[in-house]
Amino acid sequence: MSNGFRALWTERYGEGVPVPSVTPDAVTKSLMAHRTVRAFLKTPLPEGALEAAIAAAQSASSSCNMQAWSVVAIEDQARKDRLAELAGDQAHIRQAPLLLMWLIDLGRLKRLGATEGVSLEGVDYFDTFMAATVDVAMAAQNAAASFEAAGLGIVYLGAMRNHAEQVATELDLPPLTTVAFGLSVGIPDPEKPAHIRPRLVPSVVLHRERYDASEEQQGIANYDAVYAAFQKAEGLPEKRWTDATLRRFATPKALHGREHLREALEKHGFRLR
Amino acid sequence: MSNGFRALWTERYGEGVPVPSVTPDAVTKSLMAHRTVRAFLKTPLPEGALEAAIAAAQSASSSCNMQAWSVVAIEDQARKDRLAELAGDQAHIRQAPLLLMWLIDLGRLKRLGATEGVSLEGVDYFDTFMAATVDVAMAAQNAAASFEAAGLGIVYLGAMRNHAEQVATELDLPPLTTVAFGLSVGIPDPEKPAHIRPRLVPSVVLHRERYDASEEQQGIANYDAVYAAFQKAEGLPEKRWTDATLRRFATPKALHGREHLREALEKHGFRLR
Repeated sequence: MSNGFRALWTERYGEGVPVPSVTPDAVTKSLMAHRTVRAFLKTPLPEGALEAAIAAAQSASSSCNMQAWSVVAIEDQARKDRLAELAGDQAHIRQAPLLLMWLIDLGRLKRLGATEGVSLEGVDYFDTFMAATVDVAMAAQNAAASFEAAGLGIVYLGAMRNHAEQVATELDLPPLTTVAFGLSVGIPDPEKPAHIRPRLVPSVVLHRERYDASEEQQGIANYDAVYAAFQKAEGLPEKRWTDATLRRFATPKALHGREHLREALEKHGFRLR
Repeated sequence: MSNGFRALWTERYGEGVPVPSVTPDAVTKSLMAHRTVRAFLKTPLPEGALEAAIAAAQSASSSCNMQAWSVVAIEDQARKDRLAELAGDQAHIRQAPLLLMWLIDLGRLKRLGATEGVSLEGVDYFDTFMAATVDVAMAAQNAAASFEAAGLGIVYLGAMRNHAEQVATELDLPPLTTVAFGLSVGIPDPEKPAHIRPRLVPSVVLHRERYDASEEQQGIANYDAVYAAFQKAEGLPEKRWTDATLRRFATPKALHGREHLREALEKHGFRLR
């Protein structure tokens, strides 16, 4: 497995993207080495790994320090199996020893308000939901980075939003507390190594002073070729990124239930004003 | 500045929270050492620091690999000043050499669809907006971790959503592309060192198998005391976290414009179905 900055850069962007002059630190290199793992050993996590990851998660910035997130750690096999079924029945959810369910938790703020006799109307606004979504994503990403630095593998599970109401029932979630995504964690199966997935070249996502889409079409065309080559090397269908993206978003059907998320949230107490 | 796991843990949670048995890695310790910096030197960033941070950002997971985010790097003083005014006129926005504006970018997907003659209806759903919000937050958090590992300081700026439409005009953002938050980056002013802000004890945010709020009230009461002591030590008003939180969310007024975010997004092309 490569771990030099130059090698990681080339794996991430393909050949031909100029490597910047930088003295790389261990943290950046560890983040750049991320790959999504979908095959795990059944071995439990090392002692303290979860606690360290949660401390890293809680160390992430939080909008107005509201800390509007929670996480449920699941090791019970039957519960993992039931949640896997709700999330497109992905085998790695059943297999990984730990499933973390990351929650947007505005319910805690509302309960605090109720205890203090204040209705906390501000919690009902769309922006507060968005701030809580940002909070939980940053927290989870710190945890993911901590797990990976400890040699563990991770895979995020957005499909946990396919049936948010049933997930809420399974986890006994109070009002205004809902799943943002899952995260499976475990020791990667060395028989099935995961590889770094290439990304769009930096010039497509990084703009200077103002938004500038002038390099976008060429950048996407180059990426389509790099992406198709990666797919082929992985034994996956050799298609362009463009095709994968069009298929995902052409109709709401490919959202697999997530097209009803807004109604599910409103039923669960979120006003999204 | 402390950098041992035990010392970082105690700064984050206060005294009395049992320290887990863990062999700490450098990444976790670096993440745990996060503190929000609000005083910067005017010195520019070291060469390559931005490029390395963006590579770390692009290495974060992305929902269905849609990569629905962009970032605008701003160094022009006049533009930083105008954006500072839109975001509550925080002095550190003007002062820090680099301002990164992190964007939810569903516009790129829509343009790709238009080029290929597909309407991409799936992009119009609430869940896709949420997935893009998660994407950009994870990307930014990797960048933040990279900057901090390089000895730089950061502060997130949710207030960039106070006037999202004016920000879109300033940055020339196309439809379905909107600011998620800003991030100021620079060398921390050694004359005004920042400290680790304590957080809720882990038992309040980490649940096992199902959501369980039974330790919540006691945990918040303990945190209120730790928080008030931190405020006092920092020379800030000695109040409870509970009071800060109630004041922030009691009425929409404290949202400073963000109470209109949903309308602003809808005007800018987001359907949020």
